[in-house]
Amino acid sequence: MFSERIDRLQGSLVREILAVANQPDVISFAGGLPAAEAMPKLDFSDLPAGLSQYGPSEGEKWLREAVAAEMSKNGVPVGSDDILILTGSQQGLDLAAKLFVDKGTPVLVEAPTFLAAVQCFSLFGARYVEVGLTPNGPDLVELERKLIAEKPRFAYLIPTFQNPSGVCYDEATRQRVADLFDEHNVVLLEDEPYRELVYDECDRAPICARLKKAQWIHFGTFSKTAIPGLRVAYLACSPGLMPHLYKLKQAADLHTNRQGQWAMHKLLTSPDYPAHIARLRGFYHQKRDMMSAALDKHFHDLADWTIPPGGLFFWLKLKANIDSYALLQPALERKVAFMPGKPFYATERVSNELRLNFSHAAPEKIEEGVKVLSEVIRAHL
Amino acid sequence: MFSERIDRLQGSLVREILAVANQPDVISFAGGLPAAEAMPKLDFSDLPAGLSQYGPSEGEKWLREAVAAEMSKNGVPVGSDDILILTGSQQGLDLAAKLFVDKGTPVLVEAPTFLAAVQCFSLFGARYVEVGLTPNGPDLVELERKLIAEKPRFAYLIPTFQNPSGVCYDEATRQRVADLFDEHNVVLLEDEPYRELVYDECDRAPICARLKKAQWIHFGTFSKTAIPGLRVAYLACSPGLMPHLYKLKQAADLHTNRQGQWAMHKLLTSPDYPAHIARLRGFYHQKRDMMSAALDKHFHDLADWTIPPGGLFFWLKLKANIDSYALLQPALERKVAFMPGKPFYATERVSNELRLNFSHAAPEKIEEGVKVLSEVIRAHL
Repeated sequence: MFSERIDRLQGSLVREILAVANQPDVISFAGGLPAAEAMPKLDFSDLPAGLSQYGPSEGEKWLREAVAAEMSKNGVPVGSDDILILTGSQQGLDLAAKLFVDKGTPVLVEAPTFLAAVQCFSLFGARYVEVGLTPNGPDLVELERKLIAEKPRFAYLIPTFQNPSGVCYDEATRQRVADLFDEHNVVLLEDEPYRELVYDECDRAPICARLKKAQWIHFGTFSKTAIPGLRVAYLACSPGLMPHLYKLKQAADLHTNRQGQWAMHKLLTSPDYPAHIARLRGFYHQKRDMMSAALDKHFHDLADWTIPPGGLFFWLKLKANIDSYALLQPALERKVAFMPGKPFYATERVSNELRLNFSHAAPEKIEEGVKVLSEVIRAHL
Repeated sequence: MFSERIDRLQGSLVREILAVANQPDVISFAGGLPAAEAMPKLDFSDLPAGLSQYGPSEGEKWLREAVAAEMSKNGVPVGSDDILILTGSQQGLDLAAKLFVDKGTPVLVEAPTFLAAVQCFSLFGARYVEVGLTPNGPDLVELERKLIAEKPRFAYLIPTFQNPSGVCYDEATRQRVADLFDEHNVVLLEDEPYRELVYDECDRAPICARLKKAQWIHFGTFSKTAIPGLRVAYLACSPGLMPHLYKLKQAADLHTNRQGQWAMHKLLTSPDYPAHIARLRGFYHQKRDMMSAALDKHFHDLADWTIPPGGLFFWLKLKANIDSYALLQPALERKVAFMPGKPFYATERVSNELRLNFSHAAPEKIEEGVKVLSEVIRAHL
């Protein structure tokens, strides 16, 4: 009765854990939720009535211009016609999957990678080619070998404060990845939701701008820096892809809500926006350091990790070779939520890793939650 | 380089014509645009800050409750858990296509039908089974024959003020369609964007509520009665479909923008809403009658049509056997836009039909536009 792809339809564990984690007495390290108290205030007071009508599928011209200016400033020289406004960057994954993925299409991803991307690509039948991560980015020898052997149609990468690992590709790795993609003519999907959430200096220049031949799509969003509830994000892409992505967007939801585009444009172009971003960085930096201190205290003998230079997550590898999935239920019983490592891998495997979000929990709850989690693990060992 | 489905990716002629038709000096009968002056005013003044955060994929509980109450009042007894909030009802078509359509899947549609539905289903590889329309709904003999011979996986129907034909199924047809779908176990997709835009008394009781066995999805939207720019619509469905549709929604865009859901809920539950709908009906009724009079005057010897009892469109069949597509360019040169019949058919054919929207053009422009259009046709003959 259903399409063949429904056999591959997965729910998102994140969303299911969030349903539990959102209860007020739970300390949640599970989601990628930005801190509500750090969000800018929405102001719709002078919303133009004209935006009530249907709007253009590509998004509002003034928002595309502002996004293009921002991207150009960040080293990707694009114009407003290279920008497509999205209903959240999740929609970008859906459009890209439709554009590229047939049943059995080889898709290169980092291991681990963003689980909602896997959910999207899997629905359309992707076959995964995984490349492991080092602290500086993907293992370049493995990457080259797999580009040659597996000929992936595209690679989905999160170069800056990767989710879940927190890795930020260094400059040399960024350049080498671009050179390899040009050489082997592999499309780059570069997902950059976290790039503005930077706490320690590191290389953040987008890879797409270095490509000479390979096609690319670069995803950005306002959900981590401003208001996720508005569902306003964007992509930029190489010129050959836009006509298809435009039509796919049109067929997906006609256009993104205009009121949200307007509110986001107002925030983005307000004189206070740079100060908002600076405050947000300061706020999350502090929370990261709190979690770092709590981990040092309670996890030093339990796990290994590196301090993420940006983004929203710590990625812990337990010293014990146990399945971190088995810790979820006991942790939830003690009112602490986290994400086990397993769903972040595109192919089935057991993982002794944990992803801990530090942006959402209240500062005074971070240590408490980390302590409880360490007790749960000790009890389990 | 692209997926196989991209060979089937079509742009929407409506959206392309709209790009021209939205120029201020063009009289547009092309789109399905509601009249801007008839839209309720948006009021975000007491928008809760809590809605800035990510929200539930199924949509806000309070909006689902209000929609369920409204649908129950209209004869479809559903609860809030049977409702999924959508980013425009276009998204519902995308989710349904993902749920049901593989390459070659037989899909039953009216001839003519809604062209954006065809765009969506075609992308996933639908093979169309077309059933002709009579003034009372689909040809029931043809429908039964094709249900038996072609075994469509689902049927996509617009029973109330069908787009583009304006047909409203009568009571006996609605019941017979339901019986046939139960007998042959065909899923019903019932799309009802226009049901509130009623000007003459007619049967409007949803078909989905009459089904005893067959599964169904019923689509509704606020875009025709309230604010299309918000992109807030909904579906209700039989219980077996919701778990899949929920996950497909999650993978498509995580959730619909919460500010739009809030504003729409506020409108929908305001004491003034019934009066707004009544005013809207009065306003469009008047415009329909203006276009009817203009057609009597300028088209009586050029075309045949019936007066639509609701909705937004007249559907004209020219007496001359010419391709109405050929009239589009000359009409646009004279600053009048309309939709030719051709793209409303799921399978390739020549059409001597025209769809004329009467909701968008200013009242004083309706006769002028109709007159110019008649002159364009006379010049062409």
